[in-house]
Amino acid sequence: MTRHSATLAVNERLQAKRNAGEEVLHLGFGEAGLPVPPGAAEVLARSAGHNAYGPVAGSERARRAAAGFFDRRGLPTDPDRVLFAPGSKALLFGLLAALPGGVVLPQPSWVSYAAQAALLHERIHWVPVPAEAGGVPDPDLLERALVRAEADGQRPSSLVLTLPDNPTGTLAPPDLVRRVCAVAERHDLLVISDEIYRDLATGELRSPAELLPERTVVTCGLSKSTALGGYRIGFARLPTGELGARLHEELLGIASEIWSGLAAPMQDVAAWVLDDPAEVTEHIAASSRLHRAVAGAVHAEFRTAGAVCREPTAAFYLYPDLEPLRPALAARGADTGPAVAELLLDRHGVGVLAGAEFGDPEHALRFRVATSLLYGETPEQRRQALHSRDPLALPWIRGSLDNLRAALRDVAG
Amino acid sequence: MTRHSATLAVNERLQAKRNAGEEVLHLGFGEAGLPVPPGAAEVLARSAGHNAYGPVAGSERARRAAAGFFDRRGLPTDPDRVLFAPGSKALLFGLLAALPGGVVLPQPSWVSYAAQAALLHERIHWVPVPAEAGGVPDPDLLERALVRAEADGQRPSSLVLTLPDNPTGTLAPPDLVRRVCAVAERHDLLVISDEIYRDLATGELRSPAELLPERTVVTCGLSKSTALGGYRIGFARLPTGELGARLHEELLGIASEIWSGLAAPMQDVAAWVLDDPAEVTEHIAASSRLHRAVAGAVHAEFRTAGAVCREPTAAFYLYPDLEPLRPALAARGADTGPAVAELLLDRHGVGVLAGAEFGDPEHALRFRVATSLLYGETPEQRRQALHSRDPLALPWIRGSLDNLRAALRDVAG
Repeated sequence: MTRHSATLAVNERLQAKRNAGEEVLHLGFGEAGLPVPPGAAEVLARSAGHNAYGPVAGSERARRAAAGFFDRRGLPTDPDRVLFAPGSKALLFGLLAALPGGVVLPQPSWVSYAAQAALLHERIHWVPVPAEAGGVPDPDLLERALVRAEADGQRPSSLVLTLPDNPTGTLAPPDLVRRVCAVAERHDLLVISDEIYRDLATGELRSPAELLPERTVVTCGLSKSTALGGYRIGFARLPTGELGARLHEELLGIASEIWSGLAAPMQDVAAWVLDDPAEVTEHIAASSRLHRAVAGAVHAEFRTAGAVCREPTAAFYLYPDLEPLRPALAARGADTGPAVAELLLDRHGVGVLAGAEFGDPEHALRFRVATSLLYGETPEQRRQALHSRDPLALPWIRGSLDNLRAALRDVAG
Repeated sequence: MTRHSATLAVNERLQAKRNAGEEVLHLGFGEAGLPVPPGAAEVLARSAGHNAYGPVAGSERARRAAAGFFDRRGLPTDPDRVLFAPGSKALLFGLLAALPGGVVLPQPSWVSYAAQAALLHERIHWVPVPAEAGGVPDPDLLERALVRAEADGQRPSSLVLTLPDNPTGTLAPPDLVRRVCAVAERHDLLVISDEIYRDLATGELRSPAELLPERTVVTCGLSKSTALGGYRIGFARLPTGELGARLHEELLGIASEIWSGLAAPMQDVAAWVLDDPAEVTEHIAASSRLHRAVAGAVHAEFRTAGAVCREPTAAFYLYPDLEPLRPALAARGADTGPAVAELLLDRHGVGVLAGAEFGDPEHALRFRVATSLLYGETPEQRRQALHSRDPLALPWIRGSLDNLRAALRDVAG
């Protein structure tokens, strides 16, 4: 099942329940759920006259802004190694297309990596994430998997990391990233570091691009930290050096033939946002606080109910494991991850995505919980949540947490 | 060489010449070269608050507008069979990805079809266009090619038509379309009808979707007729029936994994434009008049110089054949299409794209001439050209035609 159909199925079921007058909790969709940052809409409006085709990589103004964005975050960047696209997803697809030979993915990892690899008939090498954090494979298991793959005549060419991570809502600590990068270098892997949540992390982000500048592509976008999902703005930072130049040229060719370039008015928005103006920085800081507060509260509910779950340190996700509750769940006929997700949806109107969608085995009782759609159903509620000093006290958020608690108590009991 | 690099190479050479103070004529790039239709910019500005992810296929409002657009053009359309994307190019790629087994292309045809097929490792079956018009293969040659392919164990699954056509600037007449469709049906081909120039044709457009409704996808977009290339708005109309439903489902999955959806504010623009408001209809009518006047004048220059060239009946392209001038050209060392393009560029600053870029053989002395960048270098000049009763009398257009005449006289003499 593609992400499209999995997410749609959850959406449709929730909608049907809501139409039938039932209470629902939509925890299935990775949208920031917040308003446009102040100023961005005005930039889009001012740019409406930009109707000409532009360079495939994006305008010089936008590429310079992206380079500055990375510079200020510890990654000195040549604007000529930046490439914009209608969403970072398109860039990830283009990169996988440019790097045949197989891809290594953390297990679990964001649904679209595997789906894109499948579209491209690329072999996927799954390597479990460590208990410590998601978004990166366990370094020892990675080493073993690569040795085994090579012994089988396989030569995977790329490794995708997600820093911070969707689905686990964690940021891999610098030492873990360093160990993974050492293995990647030894086995000649190109690292694709998906950093779309980078501005929504609490801890220190060590990008593989700092450690392996000649073999790391960073992808990023404005859908998460600045809540501009509907604008479809993504960008990539290609590696330095000769390999980076070749990959850049190849990606440009692919971009040219699949999507031509990011819409010109959206490039102007990107240029403005990526200059880090004060109103955007404040919007991101407020978003981060809200994400942290609500994800923290939802985490507490799952822990109270008896789940194992990593402490959220980034973005707006949790990835609970209900293994400790297996007997109670099995008694209700739910002895796989998808069956638990189905139980939550069917009995309690709680929509989550089973871990199997992220590459985890079916028997694991894990699923992803997206907490950002709890902020409200109307723009006004979301705005209030964003600016509240105590968002957990807002009645619609408190009500959702109460409903979740009741559902988990029932499921676990 | 990809379209990206071919077009870029011409652009860069022209720019270098211009910087060196030489006169240049940019006839190499298929951009409408006109301002945004009145009203569209305001719609984009009003939609700037739409930052949520939407359905992969596009909003119901946009899909209904596209259905109405097709309805009024003789193609009754179910909004549920419409799919938007960031450009029709992305949709064409998605369709080729969904239809493996090989693709039949008219020779010549738009550069990106073959480039996309190559990216997907799809076999291409080239079939020459008839003398009458481009955009469709000669029906008899198509029949022969398919019989031969099948005898070789090949089973091409799709046929791309371009109605009206880039690069020839012609619209295949209804009878020719009918004959091609009969062959396509007999050999079980799905027809991809690229109708992005459909509102810029003079004659009657017979869409394959009228003749083979259950096996024709129509792709379209706003980059050409409404000059919104920089907005990147494309849409497709999927076939009726069961096959159409399956293809639709598959294309949705591909769209979801590569680009997610068209930016929400751009969907609002599309919904507005596709309702055919009077200001858009008038803008398209004025554009058509201008395209016709200038393409007609450039056509006359090529005919006067001794070229064979189809009369332009749509869009803003010509596809001259300098075969009658072969002796004179050979004397200048230009005995292939690319060599003629190089001679025009190098000696006369006239940038065109050689027919080899469109799949024609190298020895053919053919190339594509895009006439739309003659309208002016500034927005003001382009606006004047659009609203002029006699655009050929405008000094910058007249000057370009004079320069072209001198260059062709020199080349032919």
